[in-house]
Amino acid sequence: METWTLARGYRYAGVHCGIRPDPNRLDPNRLDLALVVSDEPAAAAGVFTQNRVCAAPVRICQERLPAAAARGIVICSGNANACTGAQGLRDACRMAGCAARSLGCRPEQILVCSTGVIGRLLPMEAIEPGIAAACSSLGADAAALDRAAHAILTTDTRIKVSTRSVLLEGTEVRLTGFAKGAAMIGPNMATMLAFVLSDAAVRPDDLAKIVPGVAEKSFNGISVEGHTSTNDSLIIFANGTGRKLTGAGLWEFEQAATQVCAELARAIAADAEGANHLITIDVEGTRNHEEARRIAKAVADSVLVKTAIFGADPNWGRIVSAAGYAGVDFEERDLSLRLGEFLLYDRGQPTPFDAARVSAWLKSNREVPMRLQFTLGSGRCTFYTCDLTYEYVRLNADYTT
Amino acid sequence: METWTLARGYRYAGVHCGIRPDPNRLDPNRLDLALVVSDEPAAAAGVFTQNRVCAAPVRICQERLPAAAARGIVICSGNANACTGAQGLRDACRMAGCAARSLGCRPEQILVCSTGVIGRLLPMEAIEPGIAAACSSLGADAAALDRAAHAILTTDTRIKVSTRSVLLEGTEVRLTGFAKGAAMIGPNMATMLAFVLSDAAVRPDDLAKIVPGVAEKSFNGISVEGHTSTNDSLIIFANGTGRKLTGAGLWEFEQAATQVCAELARAIAADAEGANHLITIDVEGTRNHEEARRIAKAVADSVLVKTAIFGADPNWGRIVSAAGYAGVDFEERDLSLRLGEFLLYDRGQPTPFDAARVSAWLKSNREVPMRLQFTLGSGRCTFYTCDLTYEYVRLNADYTT
Repeated sequence: METWTLARGYRYAGVHCGIRPDPNRLDPNRLDLALVVSDEPAAAAGVFTQNRVCAAPVRICQERLPAAAARGIVICSGNANACTGAQGLRDACRMAGCAARSLGCRPEQILVCSTGVIGRLLPMEAIEPGIAAACSSLGADAAALDRAAHAILTTDTRIKVSTRSVLLEGTEVRLTGFAKGAAMIGPNMATMLAFVLSDAAVRPDDLAKIVPGVAEKSFNGISVEGHTSTNDSLIIFANGTGRKLTGAGLWEFEQAATQVCAELARAIAADAEGANHLITIDVEGTRNHEEARRIAKAVADSVLVKTAIFGADPNWGRIVSAAGYAGVDFEERDLSLRLGEFLLYDRGQPTPFDAARVSAWLKSNREVPMRLQFTLGSGRCTFYTCDLTYEYVRLNADYTT
Repeated sequence: METWTLARGYRYAGVHCGIRPDPNRLDPNRLDLALVVSDEPAAAAGVFTQNRVCAAPVRICQERLPAAAARGIVICSGNANACTGAQGLRDACRMAGCAARSLGCRPEQILVCSTGVIGRLLPMEAIEPGIAAACSSLGADAAALDRAAHAILTTDTRIKVSTRSVLLEGTEVRLTGFAKGAAMIGPNMATMLAFVLSDAAVRPDDLAKIVPGVAEKSFNGISVEGHTSTNDSLIIFANGTGRKLTGAGLWEFEQAATQVCAELARAIAADAEGANHLITIDVEGTRNHEEARRIAKAVADSVLVKTAIFGADPNWGRIVSAAGYAGVDFEERDLSLRLGEFLLYDRGQPTPFDAARVSAWLKSNREVPMRLQFTLGSGRCTFYTCDLTYEYVRLNADYTT
């Protein structure tokens, strides 16, 4: 926490207001409502879930972004406000309106996010006082960000925060990112909830152009179980007031934002529900990036690959066969596979290997790198996922009841 | 077993020859090599996995089918003979050659299938005597079919057999189907291994035209975990010697074969690894069949849906959100969802329901029907899948080691 270099001009709050219907399940006082405020109107842009069933707050953000004068984001955890019809939209607007009144800005300047159970109406009687309490407890320090980062979590076991400081066109720019993940992670545009606050000066339309690329290179490269959520949101703020970044400066800002998001994405995969192993899938040598990505995602989403890693079983046929149904044209002789340093499949031929040794290596390593090497071109992609454990099944067999 | 009406002119054998590397794991004497023989040369056709990584026996069958004078199929279980390079192809040819010698026919008249672990060479020193033993123990009765149906199983807990007798153009035609499934079931053209032997008279090219439709309406409508195997094979024989079926008669034969395969497909989903529930997903009211199929498959493959059913948790948001990322264009108000008789989501609005009652219903029912009703057209599809349990994770965390 002490190493964070926070972007200037932002304040944070995280409070408990009682959103979860069953307080016995978790710490009854856990933080469940977060607020981020930019002191100055900020350029803001976002990308959101491609799910046809998308949450009410996502629809509100989509209407309001990109924005030239955003002031804040109010986020509740424990209820997704998805599949909640017209009442859900009214509730999401009320959340923004309530924060705007306390902060003295227009409701359109406030963005709204939610995460949690789908299909339940928000407990507005708890949320409205919660927003008022958050507005009166804002802080600009690391402790305040820490509270906000905790307040957005659901089944995550730890917060995900990433900060960067970069020199752009002679000016120091700082970025503060935080996110939550845990499950229903199969991003398609962005993952569950992620926020990057920066003090860069960027035009809103430039910011809007940058965000999809940032998401593509970070959150779209992780999967817990391939289930694209109704609430995926990535929102980036830039509240700098100086000369707007252009050209190389803008490009470097995009790189810095991508690094922040990639770090958050990796942290989400590492803290996935019930996970024992963080699996890194490197695919290289395909004709292009898209082919590498399709193969990486097929391997990442394979329940059979995930259970094998959980069991420390070097059952590499499952990895190769998942690559085979990814919809990419290749011959077996084009493919070699390494698990860590162990070469298991060499240009279409199985190689002799010591299964007990590979299994012991899997047991003793929390991080498992897989490398699928093709001989077709220079396409490459890195994807993060996790293993599938008893604990994942336990957590998800008993989530709402 | 006594109710089976077997197609005429076929003999069966199932023997133990010791294919599995670890006999302690399972019954050391379990049957692991099956043989089917048509007394007369038969028309034969098949469909096979679309996986780019496909097993050696699949390649052999693809070369040999459709055939006008097929004589038999030799099948081994416990080893997939996939990812085994040139040696794998030689071994698959040797299996066919060995059976052909014993039966007195040409090797090209024999088809070959394998199922089991990927990436290991076949133990030919066990398989060759096994084929000889199978050739000398062929029988035409239900007990012989029962042995063959057992010999193709891997982690299946029971055999899958379906028979039909239909009157086509004044002649009784009989069909005998058997299959195996259990896991790595996400068919794309056909599932793991399935065989339909019939005494119909059908031209090979007509048979070849029929088979893809039969697979589409049966095996392509099930999923255990969506992982398309390297060995998926459906092979249909027609050994009738009379006037070949055409027109309406051929159409009725296709219907009968589809019924046999649909019954086998449903049995595979019901006997999936570790499954507690058979889930039937009915999607209706989409613009066309393909849209219904995409939605049904997205729901069937969702690990979150499967774990919720295992936990008897009526967490319907997971079902609706899986439909939402299936790549089909719809609005939430177009969709209603029923779990059994319980209406949980009504044209985009959540409905009040007694979660404890639905949960109790889930706990007490092995079969769970889900119905997703759209208001977009007359497309429909039925898909079968199963829940995801601790037992599935246990079985798959420790398969090869």
